[in-house]
Amino acid sequence: MGRWEPNARGRLEQAALELYLERGFAPTTVTEIAKRAGLTERTFFRHFADKREVLFSGSEMLQQALVDAVAGAPGEAAPIDAVAAGLDTVGDLFRDRRPHSLRRQSVIAANPELQERELIKLARLSAATAGALRARGVPEPAASLAAEAGTAVFRIAFERWVDGPQDEDLTQLIRGSLAELKAVTAGA
Amino acid sequence: MGRWEPNARGRLEQAALELYLERGFAPTTVTEIAKRAGLTERTFFRHFADKREVLFSGSEMLQQALVDAVAGAPGEAAPIDAVAAGLDTVGDLFRDRRPHSLRRQSVIAANPELQERELIKLARLSAATAGALRARGVPEPAASLAAEAGTAVFRIAFERWVDGPQDEDLTQLIRGSLAELKAVTAGA
Repeated sequence: MGRWEPNARGRLEQAALELYLERGFAPTTVTEIAKRAGLTERTFFRHFADKREVLFSGSEMLQQALVDAVAGAPGEAAPIDAVAAGLDTVGDLFRDRRPHSLRRQSVIAANPELQERELIKLARLSAATAGALRARGVPEPAASLAAEAGTAVFRIAFERWVDGPQDEDLTQLIRGSLAELKAVTAGA
Repeated sequence: MGRWEPNARGRLEQAALELYLERGFAPTTVTEIAKRAGLTERTFFRHFADKREVLFSGSEMLQQALVDAVAGAPGEAAPIDAVAAGLDTVGDLFRDRRPHSLRRQSVIAANPELQERELIKLARLSAATAGALRARGVPEPAASLAAEAGTAVFRIAFERWVDGPQDEDLTQLIRGSLAELKAVTAGA
């Protein structure tokens, strides 16, 4: 981003979310998003490949943070504890992002194409987590199962966070979901 | 299917899979599939909405069988045991279907659009399983977590079954994956 366009990326995200909520995702154009943000289409395309990517641009950072935290967990940590360390980091990333997440989620809930995209991003997140576990020496299928378990815990905690009261903490919800998954798989 | 077209559905499935493997999914047309099967396009569209649905037409039957088995598990069964009963039924459904599954899987692996479709079908399977658990009185998030766990177990066991030696039993692989998931979530 050039210095003549302070926070262009954030302004474009903000404008896009506003328009998607006001008019729906499908009819909104990149021209309209750029105009609402007081920027040019060219600037838009310097930051995002298309209008869909505005909603998913954070997923690579999320994935990287998760993978780094799994890799950085103590060497003796059990696979599920390495995943739990990764999920704690993810919880931290969303701190103060609830208003944004809430608006983003309602755009996605209204559009099947975006829901599919979200599923694909979650599948990639799970595959990347499994890769980070294998790099720690965890064999298959334990690596994929621990990664899938972690992804399910995150997805379900995230939904509860977005739908729930304003003051709930995502990290606490994630830890609660993981504890619940442990109880469920133990046959409780 | 009319009596003048014995096993039209099976013949169309067989022809479609052959063509997808020979030429790829994208360039194959419904006209070619119908011709290979010795049937008309009109017959094709009596059985399938489009050429993609040929690959996914079994998923509703699969979902129904899973949901029925979860619903039919003993009333006192823990959620994860009700899911396990459902997965046993799914394993039975695929008995003798390995050659077909193997070919179908290689078509899907070669095409991102089909992989996305597969993810969507799995997400629906998981949502339907969670619904069947809630109908048994299992509260949220336990119902969704048990359903996600079951879906992950199925997906990973299915991949191992398709990739593994010919004489492996899917039901045994599913049970093994579930045992592994229990060990993983217990911190083993």
